[in-house]
Amino acid sequence: MKRVFFNIGELATATGTAAVCGSAQSEVKKLHGAWLLEENGTILQTGESAAPDADESIDCGGRLVTAGLVDCHTHLVFGGWREHELAMKLAGKTYLEILAAGGGILSTVRETRRASEDALCEKTRTLMTEMLRHGTTALEIKSGYGLDLETERKQLRVIRRLQEENPDIAATFLGAHAFPEGMDHEAYVDLLCSEMIPEIAKDGIAQFCDVFCDDGVFTAEQSERILLAGKRFGMTPKMHADEIKEIGGTQAAARVGAISCDHLSETGAEGIQALKDGGVIAVMLPATSFYLKKPYGDFRGMIDAGVAVAVATDMNPGSTPNLSLPFAMTAGCLYGRLTPEEVLTGATLNGAAAIGMASRLGTLEPGKQADLVVWDADNLDQLIYRYGTNRAAAVYKRGARMA
Amino acid sequence: MKRVFFNIGELATATGTAAVCGSAQSEVKKLHGAWLLEENGTILQTGESAAPDADESIDCGGRLVTAGLVDCHTHLVFGGWREHELAMKLAGKTYLEILAAGGGILSTVRETRRASEDALCEKTRTLMTEMLRHGTTALEIKSGYGLDLETERKQLRVIRRLQEENPDIAATFLGAHAFPEGMDHEAYVDLLCSEMIPEIAKDGIAQFCDVFCDDGVFTAEQSERILLAGKRFGMTPKMHADEIKEIGGTQAAARVGAISCDHLSETGAEGIQALKDGGVIAVMLPATSFYLKKPYGDFRGMIDAGVAVAVATDMNPGSTPNLSLPFAMTAGCLYGRLTPEEVLTGATLNGAAAIGMASRLGTLEPGKQADLVVWDADNLDQLIYRYGTNRAAAVYKRGARMA
Repeated sequence: MKRVFFNIGELATATGTAAVCGSAQSEVKKLHGAWLLEENGTILQTGESAAPDADESIDCGGRLVTAGLVDCHTHLVFGGWREHELAMKLAGKTYLEILAAGGGILSTVRETRRASEDALCEKTRTLMTEMLRHGTTALEIKSGYGLDLETERKQLRVIRRLQEENPDIAATFLGAHAFPEGMDHEAYVDLLCSEMIPEIAKDGIAQFCDVFCDDGVFTAEQSERILLAGKRFGMTPKMHADEIKEIGGTQAAARVGAISCDHLSETGAEGIQALKDGGVIAVMLPATSFYLKKPYGDFRGMIDAGVAVAVATDMNPGSTPNLSLPFAMTAGCLYGRLTPEEVLTGATLNGAAAIGMASRLGTLEPGKQADLVVWDADNLDQLIYRYGTNRAAAVYKRGARMA
Repeated sequence: MKRVFFNIGELATATGTAAVCGSAQSEVKKLHGAWLLEENGTILQTGESAAPDADESIDCGGRLVTAGLVDCHTHLVFGGWREHELAMKLAGKTYLEILAAGGGILSTVRETRRASEDALCEKTRTLMTEMLRHGTTALEIKSGYGLDLETERKQLRVIRRLQEENPDIAATFLGAHAFPEGMDHEAYVDLLCSEMIPEIAKDGIAQFCDVFCDDGVFTAEQSERILLAGKRFGMTPKMHADEIKEIGGTQAAARVGAISCDHLSETGAEGIQALKDGGVIAVMLPATSFYLKKPYGDFRGMIDAGVAVAVATDMNPGSTPNLSLPFAMTAGCLYGRLTPEEVLTGATLNGAAAIGMASRLGTLEPGKQADLVVWDADNLDQLIYRYGTNRAAAVYKRGARMA
């Protein structure tokens, strides 16, 4: 069955099957008065001349079409919400102060431990559906609100169940998200490496292993141990680094061959060089910076230095309860000084690359999956500019309308 | 016909029929497990005990209900968009530099002059419908993209036509939004005072008269002349002041008895005192600060000093193309350091007061119009916290569902 999407005002897409960096990040191909032909969920061709015939024709109304967005960093499986911390934030409390007051991540851990797998699954599905309505057709989801084998497994099983509904979900084990209350730090690192990672690996429910390497959380040395343990069991390393302070995370990420290093609000020239030398994708989380009123990170400098940059939401109940990737894209332009083209590449191809899906997702090219969004915008600039509302008019996955 | 809205998880409302200031701005009444009874579009009663019988019962699903939002500062009638200026903004150009380069407001003036009244009406209706879907049930719309009598009138006629569909729209004449290209400044002020204002007044299509009093635009003296001319013809004064620089706008606003003074990003202690002494409502436009990366203004200080603060979007094609008032509310909390309660009062009762509608709108109290929003949020904190997506689940005007 062939479908043609015609009357596309602007078709904007990155190109290729691997992360692009440097000037290539801004080289977005734009077709005008365009069409896209797909067959059984795979893109056959795009063009600007008269649209070919097909079994079904979809009029895009002269609007912008891009590849489906890929949100490569989310914490979407969690119990409860944390709106009651808003007053503390407004009073100027820091994340570590909220943590010390028994709130923060540990309260989400308590709620997640308490929640049933079915309830978590239902809640995550609702959030995922809302993300889909905002243009996100593929995503990564992390565990990390269990901090014990049983709950981490429960979170990963939820992701597994959702993968049956949308195979384009990457599952990441983030047991090293925080230290469990009252537990010796080294003992928890030992537990992660010698028990939790092997057990998770046995279940085969996580493709990636992540760690929160930062001041007051996991040290660079601990992070490296954990990620190497994960790697031995077949999980690709990822890292949260330099959100609070530079403590050598980027260098550790490069040493273990991490696919991505995320946050990076405090990363300086040496860290940028480490990411570049290690071929690590830098994941920008501008919505988190907005919500926490923290630095946006030198992603302009990273692109200029030749690092590939992805853009993601970091959706989570603590530091940024926003699931709109387009909002993060606008914040990334305004406050991270990326161009609309760079941010589009970041939220599609480079996002896909950061979760190992760039061979089939992230661009509108022959052979790629027909995941695309028709935006209520005339062009890419307008998508970024008309922030604050959802501009996704229609969202397609493998050619079929999903939202 | 009586309708009861029942199973309201949290009913949050300001109280009264006039702008509230100081500690009253934070005194939001909250009912839990609540109901609201309305008859023929007017609120009869609210309560927490068992809901009364009615002809129609609407289950609010345990969610948050507030009064319909009132957006008291928008520029919603305009030709074209200005997404192409995004690249200039990203390159660090200031508003005045973009203006000097022939872009900025004067390009919107050209497009608005060119557009037909019908086309403008259709476009504004589309935007208003989108605002309604985000919870805005009443609003103000300014002219100001004509800068000549004919086009300003055209804009105001568009507003008049939309008032037939929604009577809760305030119309503001903003002929003094900028100087027409190539025209002597004093000559334009003369034209405004001696010809445009009298003609507009004769048409009876503007309740308010506004002026952009700032560095490089209208001086405080010019602003005062214009607003006094408007006042003589029955238009209530409003003012854009201190967005770029303090040039005496707040004092002039107080002298002419302006109902509101808007922007105020640069207002210091003396300006705050002038607003307080003059009983002028301060209108905070945090989405504009976000988009322009400008200061958010000392609205915390204004509330503490006893000034009534309203919160609005400033929706316009140049400095903030966002029509979500909830986004502005979140930015107002995070960056203006208002509490969720203060910002709710600002976006409902005080917004209504800033456009002379507080006697019938802005709170959920007996006798007020049954304009309300059921939010996909458990409570007020959650509405502010879950930013980035539209949380309005159902929007009612005079008791009837509109979105």
